[in-house]
Amino acid sequence: MPFYRPSSIPYLDTRKGVGVKSITGEKAQLTFVLLEPGTTTHHSHPNEQLGVIFTGLVDLDIGGETRRLGPGDAYLIPSGVEHGFTVPAGNPLEYAEVFVPPKEENRTPGIEEARI
Amino acid sequence: MPFYRPSSIPYLDTRKGVGVKSITGEKAQLTFVLLEPGTTTHHSHPNEQLGVIFTGLVDLDIGGETRRLGPGDAYLIPSGVEHGFTVPAGNPLEYAEVFVPPKEENRTPGIEEARI
Repeated sequence: MPFYRPSSIPYLDTRKGVGVKSITGEKAQLTFVLLEPGTTTHHSHPNEQLGVIFTGLVDLDIGGETRRLGPGDAYLIPSGVEHGFTVPAGNPLEYAEVFVPPKEENRTPGIEEARI
Repeated sequence: MPFYRPSSIPYLDTRKGVGVKSITGEKAQLTFVLLEPGTTTHHSHPNEQLGVIFTGLVDLDIGGETRRLGPGDAYLIPSGVEHGFTVPAGNPLEYAEVFVPPKEENRTPGIEEARI
């Protein structure tokens, strides 16, 4: 049955400064993300995206509006809206977010090793 | 734009021992949950459900199999599968989970006051 301890496996590096671990369902994908300080992402996609910050800070741009978010803060990125994560110098950012539908490129085969 | 600080508003009590704060999108709903010690829930629903534990412990039953989960642990409850959360005596349980599609009964009108 699908119980997981994500801390038991390393992040899968998808590009420099970006690590993910995803639990992928039929409809939704829960993705744990590590962004190194200085990392910037900026794009849009049809997947709706909601998340919550665990540790660190991020300057999050959603549709041209920006907030600095910290631990416990959350966001909703509607389908198709441009958005960007910029991690200020200092500490890495760790957060979890969900994509609906799942993003194929976020699938983490190694997640099965995190089952408990 | 949809930036939130959920810690700035109280949980909405949906029944004794159960508090929620939900950010509801078009496709998915991110719900922060507080379960008091001794609380038990058991049901099934067509919504797919994925979550991660923040603080406390829970004995989580998914489809008749049970694990004790703690901070950082995660789960995937497929659509229609019976599941139950039981919080052992001691500390409250805090976690976040996503429902796809959103659960109408989890909508939290007060969440708009948590916008930042």
